[in-house]
Amino acid sequence: MFGVTILGNNSAVPAHDRHPTSQAVTIANEVLLLDCGEGTQMQIKDYKVKRSKINYIFISHLHGDHYFGLIGLLSSMALINRTTPLHLFAPPALFEVIQLQLKIADSSLPFQLHFHPLEKEGEIVNERKFTVSCFKVIHRIDCFGFLIKEKHKSRKINLPKALAACIPTMFYERLQNGEDYLTKDGKIVKNETVTLEGKKNKAYAYCADTLYTESFLPNIHQVDLLYHESTYLNDFEEQAKNRFHSTAEQAAVIAKKADAKKLLIGHFSSKYKTLDLFELQSKSVFPNTELSKEGVTYLV
Amino acid sequence: MFGVTILGNNSAVPAHDRHPTSQAVTIANEVLLLDCGEGTQMQIKDYKVKRSKINYIFISHLHGDHYFGLIGLLSSMALINRTTPLHLFAPPALFEVIQLQLKIADSSLPFQLHFHPLEKEGEIVNERKFTVSCFKVIHRIDCFGFLIKEKHKSRKINLPKALAACIPTMFYERLQNGEDYLTKDGKIVKNETVTLEGKKNKAYAYCADTLYTESFLPNIHQVDLLYHESTYLNDFEEQAKNRFHSTAEQAAVIAKKADAKKLLIGHFSSKYKTLDLFELQSKSVFPNTELSKEGVTYLV
Repeated sequence: MFGVTILGNNSAVPAHDRHPTSQAVTIANEVLLLDCGEGTQMQIKDYKVKRSKINYIFISHLHGDHYFGLIGLLSSMALINRTTPLHLFAPPALFEVIQLQLKIADSSLPFQLHFHPLEKEGEIVNERKFTVSCFKVIHRIDCFGFLIKEKHKSRKINLPKALAACIPTMFYERLQNGEDYLTKDGKIVKNETVTLEGKKNKAYAYCADTLYTESFLPNIHQVDLLYHESTYLNDFEEQAKNRFHSTAEQAAVIAKKADAKKLLIGHFSSKYKTLDLFELQSKSVFPNTELSKEGVTYLV
Repeated sequence: MFGVTILGNNSAVPAHDRHPTSQAVTIANEVLLLDCGEGTQMQIKDYKVKRSKINYIFISHLHGDHYFGLIGLLSSMALINRTTPLHLFAPPALFEVIQLQLKIADSSLPFQLHFHPLEKEGEIVNERKFTVSCFKVIHRIDCFGFLIKEKHKSRKINLPKALAACIPTMFYERLQNGEDYLTKDGKIVKNETVTLEGKKNKAYAYCADTLYTESFLPNIHQVDLLYHESTYLNDFEEQAKNRFHSTAEQAAVIAKKADAKKLLIGHFSSKYKTLDLFELQSKSVFPNTELSKEGVTYLV
C-alpha cells in the first residue's frame, strides 16, 4: 500500500476539531512522517498509525504548526524505550532546539537520532523500495516540499520465456533493468521477448506551505497524487500572497500545470468553519480534487 | 468562583484519551494556567476555558509533559493578535527555548511576555484579590509547587453599626484590616462592634511532580484543596521512588499530614488504563479524595 493518512489538515491555530499539519505516508511497509504539528502523537494513536514503523521524519520548515509536536513524539518514543535509529530531515536550526530541550530536561534519547539538515534540493533518501527528494517551495522562511517515489524494477521477468531462452538467473536483475541478453554464441535475446512491463512507479508530492509559484513544477510533473496547500478561498487571494500561502483555486492551477493525476488540498485557515467551498473552487479548475480530511487515507 | 479545571491528568506518554499535565485555576475572574503539556491549547478550547482571561502561566519544571504545549499556546495567542501582557513563571532555561523557537520562525510576539525565572521559594504574585507563592518539591530536576490563596479583607464593615458610631468612611479600610477606631474625644470603638467576620481566604496547593516528601508540608498546611501527583499504585512504590514520583497512597498520607480539607490526585501513569484503584488506595488513607478528571472543575 502506498497511501497518505492525514493527521492534521488545518493551518496555524487549531480550530473546528482540525489540527496543525502532519501526514503519515505508508510505503513499502514503512511510515514516513511529513511534518509534525502539536498533537501529532495523539493523532497517530487515534488513527492507528504504527508509531514503531516510523523511521523517517521530514519537517518542511520551522513554523511551529509544522513541528511543535515533534519533541513530544521523540520524548514518547524515548519513554517507551525505542532503540531503532530514527532519521530526521529538517532545516538545520531544529537540531539546536531538540538538543536544548533534552538538555534542560536532563534527558537523552535511548535511540540514535540521525539529523540530516535540509539545505539544498535533491535526493535525500534512497531505500530499496522508494526514494525521497526535497525541493524548494516559496514561503516566508526556508521551506521544502518532498517527493516520494516508488522504486520498482522497470521490467518483470517472463519466467517461461526466460527459461526457454536459457538465460542464467544471475542475469535476471539486468533483465529487470531492461538490458538485452547476449548468448555465448553471439545471439541477442531482446529484452522485451523475455520480460513484461513492470509495475509503474507511483509518486506523491507534498508541497508544504507555499505561495502560488510555478518554480517547482518540474519537481512535481505528472505525480499520481499532489498535496498542495490551500489556506484560503478566493476572497483572500491578496492575503494569501502577503502571507506566502495559496488559495484552493491556485492549488488547482498548479495541479493542472503539473499534469498531476489527483490533487489533495489542505492547511485550511481557522477562519473557515466548513470546507465545501474549498472543494468547489478547486474542482472548478481541477476536477480530480479531494479535501484532505483527518484520519482518512488517500491512496497514491 | 475559585476552582480548578483539569486539562490533562496523565503522566508523560499520552494514553487512554488522557493528556499531559495542565490545569486552569479560575480565581477573581482570572484564569491561572498551571503547567502546559502538549495539546493544552486544544483542551482549553474543548473545555471552554477563556484563553483571553489567561494572564499568568506557571510552569513547575522542564520535563516536556509539563511545558511542550506552551509554545503552541503562545503562538496561537500571537496569531489572534493578543496585545495584553502575559506573565510567565518558569525555571530560567525555558526562556531560552522560547526565544530560540521564535527566532527560527522569524517571529515575534505582539504582546509583552514578562518572564519571571523561578529560582527560590516565596510569594511571586500579589494581586488585589489573590496571591501565588511557589515552593520546592523534590523531583529529578528542579521542580516547584504553587500555592494560590484568596486575599479577602479580614473583616467586613457592619454598615449600620459603623454609621451609628460616626466612623468616617476613609477609616473603613483600616476597620477591614481589624483596627479599632479612636474618636476625637478619646474613646475607643472596638473593631468587633462595627465589623463582622470576613470571608475566609481559601487556598489551593498544586504540588506538581514529586517523590514522597514531608519537606513542603509547612507550605500546604490546611489548604482547602490539595493536588498531589499519584503516578503509580502501591504495586510500583519502588519505581515511584526511583523516578521521583509518588503513589496514590503516599499522596493521601501527605494530604492527611497537611491537614488538607480535600485531595485531588492525578498524573496517572499510562500503564494504568482505568483509575478506580487510585481512588480506592488513596481513600483508604484520606477519604476526601477525588480523582482528577479532564474537563471537570473542582471547587476549592
